[in-house]
Amino acid sequence: MSSDLEIAQSAKLRPLTEIGEQLSLSPTDLEPFGHYAAKIEPAKLREAGSQRGKYVVVTAVTPTPLGEGKTTTAIGLVQGLGKLGKKVVATLRQPSLGPVFGIKGGAAGAGYSQVVPMETLNLHLTGDFHAITAAHNLLAAMVDNHLQHGNKLDIEPHSITWGRVLDMNDRALRNIVVGLGRKVDGVPRQSRFDITAASEIMTIVAQSADLPDLRARLGRIVVGFNTSGEPVTAEDLKAAGAMAVLLRDALRPNLLQTLEGQAALIHCGPFGNIATGNSSIIADKFALANTDFVITEAGFGADLGYERFVNVKCATSGLVPDAAVIVVTVRALKLHSGRHKVVAGKPLPPELLEENSADVEAGLSNLAHHLDIVRKSGVPAVVAINAFPDDHESEHQVIKDFAASKGVACVVSTHVADGGEGAQELAKAVVEAADQATDLHFSYEPEDSLEDKINSIATKVYGADGVKIEPAAAKQLARFTELGFGKLPVLIAKTHLSTTADPADRGAPTGWTLPIREVRLAAGAGYVYALAGAMQTMPGLGTHPAAEKMDITPDGRIVGLF
Amino acid sequence: MSSDLEIAQSAKLRPLTEIGEQLSLSPTDLEPFGHYAAKIEPAKLREAGSQRGKYVVVTAVTPTPLGEGKTTTAIGLVQGLGKLGKKVVATLRQPSLGPVFGIKGGAAGAGYSQVVPMETLNLHLTGDFHAITAAHNLLAAMVDNHLQHGNKLDIEPHSITWGRVLDMNDRALRNIVVGLGRKVDGVPRQSRFDITAASEIMTIVAQSADLPDLRARLGRIVVGFNTSGEPVTAEDLKAAGAMAVLLRDALRPNLLQTLEGQAALIHCGPFGNIATGNSSIIADKFALANTDFVITEAGFGADLGYERFVNVKCATSGLVPDAAVIVVTVRALKLHSGRHKVVAGKPLPPELLEENSADVEAGLSNLAHHLDIVRKSGVPAVVAINAFPDDHESEHQVIKDFAASKGVACVVSTHVADGGEGAQELAKAVVEAADQATDLHFSYEPEDSLEDKINSIATKVYGADGVKIEPAAAKQLARFTELGFGKLPVLIAKTHLSTTADPADRGAPTGWTLPIREVRLAAGAGYVYALAGAMQTMPGLGTHPAAEKMDITPDGRIVGLF
Repeated sequence: MSSDLEIAQSAKLRPLTEIGEQLSLSPTDLEPFGHYAAKIEPAKLREAGSQRGKYVVVTAVTPTPLGEGKTTTAIGLVQGLGKLGKKVVATLRQPSLGPVFGIKGGAAGAGYSQVVPMETLNLHLTGDFHAITAAHNLLAAMVDNHLQHGNKLDIEPHSITWGRVLDMNDRALRNIVVGLGRKVDGVPRQSRFDITAASEIMTIVAQSADLPDLRARLGRIVVGFNTSGEPVTAEDLKAAGAMAVLLRDALRPNLLQTLEGQAALIHCGPFGNIATGNSSIIADKFALANTDFVITEAGFGADLGYERFVNVKCATSGLVPDAAVIVVTVRALKLHSGRHKVVAGKPLPPELLEENSADVEAGLSNLAHHLDIVRKSGVPAVVAINAFPDDHESEHQVIKDFAASKGVACVVSTHVADGGEGAQELAKAVVEAADQATDLHFSYEPEDSLEDKINSIATKVYGADGVKIEPAAAKQLARFTELGFGKLPVLIAKTHLSTTADPADRGAPTGWTLPIREVRLAAGAGYVYALAGAMQTMPGLGTHPAAEKMDITPDGRIVGLF
Repeated sequence: MSSDLEIAQSAKLRPLTEIGEQLSLSPTDLEPFGHYAAKIEPAKLREAGSQRGKYVVVTAVTPTPLGEGKTTTAIGLVQGLGKLGKKVVATLRQPSLGPVFGIKGGAAGAGYSQVVPMETLNLHLTGDFHAITAAHNLLAAMVDNHLQHGNKLDIEPHSITWGRVLDMNDRALRNIVVGLGRKVDGVPRQSRFDITAASEIMTIVAQSADLPDLRARLGRIVVGFNTSGEPVTAEDLKAAGAMAVLLRDALRPNLLQTLEGQAALIHCGPFGNIATGNSSIIADKFALANTDFVITEAGFGADLGYERFVNVKCATSGLVPDAAVIVVTVRALKLHSGRHKVVAGKPLPPELLEENSADVEAGLSNLAHHLDIVRKSGVPAVVAINAFPDDHESEHQVIKDFAASKGVACVVSTHVADGGEGAQELAKAVVEAADQATDLHFSYEPEDSLEDKINSIATKVYGADGVKIEPAAAKQLARFTELGFGKLPVLIAKTHLSTTADPADRGAPTGWTLPIREVRLAAGAGYVYALAGAMQTMPGLGTHPAAEKMDITPDGRIVGLF
């Protein structure tokens, strides 16, 4: 099989005006950025009506470090629905430059289920991430500049939580000291860079309903506290207006296409651990008002991205999903048997690829757990087996039998090898599921205390017995509540490699307690996040970064981008 | 008079396809980025023929900290030539985001001589600066990552000269320590951030003839030295290919338009002190092959930007300028009398605005000096008085009389208030000057030693008696020569506020010696630069940054961007 890049480069793309028609967009409703990407005109976004299409979210079991192909399955499903003659649009996250040059090269699906142009998508696209980087760093510069020029807001320097961001995997920037040198060179203090996907602004753009909402959220960003313990905001620093100026166009979704010519709205890419891990509300709303099926995806397993999709994204947007697809792979279930070890950045161990339905069976507890999360939320589920070339029929059968025993549809999908053709059965199952009624249940109510919210997610979603909140974290929760942030939803920053807080745990363990060591505030994005383990917000590069293999030919063709 | 932004926002823009026709570009030769900015298709850039148009460079006297309106005059001249019915294109630098949010707000001309859309130009444009930032920081991450993973190239950490960049005025990043934390968080060392305009990659893009040249230059970047003292390059780190991937589109100039509908190619913006301070060769070449007049500008006074325009930009491109416009203002000459003090970021002192032709007369030595620089280079000159509302007729007359005594054309231009109408006389003078023959003289030959090159610039261009090279700098020069970099041109990083190395000096002092304390290498950009004073490569924000006044209306209109 050809590489993803080769498949993408040999694709015959359709004129974007044709793609726009799928969303009732006339050529003048599109602002082109290059020949095959465009932003939607603000007026069209403003006048988008109410939900008309079916809203389908793609989630997954607890992934291996290699990922289980959620994006690929989402794109395959879109192409599969296309084969059935359905009007369908994908709403997906934009890939981050850091990982593109780090571990994995480009990523926007795989094989014959991709969004194209692949290079545009994986590199700068229309500049949204760059705009978010700039807005984030403008605020950071204004924070340090405020300290420099007399600190009239009386900011306590050690309380500053606002770092800087770059869309790069750069471990050397995780812990830095800034402001060294002479008096004119700033106030020395310890700080950090995160990757842009971890910027609160990334989630702000993803969660904003419109431009005034974006502007208000930017103003609410808390950068730290004054010496009396009161929050200091971006509005206090008079930075929010200029940040909105930088972000005006980044709030508009980007129109691209799948390999088979369906519209794909690519917008935002919040980190999956400390942020929502979901693409934008604005893109979903617009798509749902203008087509029959909208397929989106939620980062990591159902315990993380899907939980936030329901409790944060849908709770904010008011949108109600009609179906959820749970992606499962044979390799993931084998890993969840606890009998194999997979290391990020290294090939899968050969014994994991051998036919072994007993291992698959032993890992079913993980699928059961994620299915349970989806069912408890009241959304009709479909299990999609993302087929790999080294899978065996008998292994697929184990999963199918399990699904049958649970009364849930389960389909093998070969969209990577076969494109939409290979996802037709999945598409049919999704159409059926989406015709069933949704009775959306949130895991908690806004009125619940922050502690109760954490407890609800831990017990109802993760399957923990309870929560152990460290005294320092409890104090922070009390303080956030006192400051009026008690009604915000709560995210739990937890490993994505297990349903528990320990990345080494496999399957779906019970009888454990979720430890919360620290709590942080994202007042602009609109949530409080509790840390259950050390969360990395700036990835590093490996010994041989993917960048080493990339190059450009004299006539401008990109090579080595996966 | 309305603000620059108001004038720009009320302008009626022409379809960009119409603008493209001025450069023989059909609609399919343009890749749109938004409705009113486009990149030129690579094929058109590749097939651009030889120089057909007249090549005019706009330079200036030694500026006040407020600048003397070179960009404005260049745009006014383009519009003035337009009024005369000439086919004319502006080739200008892209503004940097840092200063936009810092001191001055947006800037792309002023009043009725602007490039539009002003917001597009001053904010992200088509993302070139962001791409340069990303490519620069990818290399930085790969340098630190190399130290992290065993340092096979044996890089001596203290020799690393490659920092990181952001397009932001952020003084706290001038001196930082990176790599703190645990073992997995990098190797601790001191480093820095520069503003993106100071990135060597900015000059590389500006100086590159085409994509293969860009790729080769990226590979030649020296990031530091190994423990044997040999240079370590981006090619050695296997980073140059991926950097070229990020920069592929940034190498293509951006098409915008003036307020009066002439084409403007906006491309690159290298810093004026440690870099060339000139827009791209690729844009000039393309424009010169496709129109009758091309107006470009060179940063700061003739001692800096113009000297580099001739000795670095033209020496590289092989292009020969047909005329040079020296912009002069009454306020600048008054300042050069040595009788006034102007402070950056503060309004001009009222006494400087009072009628005082004696002060203007006393400052003429500065104009004489810059005129001399241009004449020595063999390029026909025109003096353009950029008129301000508070100028007086008698003051203009002093400048005119002086120019007449030197036998050089001198015209008052009111393009800021009147647009092209106000620059018609200037346009006529430029047409005449450009019909005279150029006998281009470089200040030195490639074969001259690096020391001799420095000496030539100091004595022939700056008017110094000689050069005093500190022992450490002399050692560096010997080392660069030994390593094979002796044939490169030399830039001298010197204050732009005086013809000497002391920013307090006014007029055009003689009888002084240029001190060189350090020499650095920009092997990818293709020059050695000698520091004659402390050079700031990361600006700071003032007490009240321009950003504080910016905002966005609910319907998306930008306000406060100057």
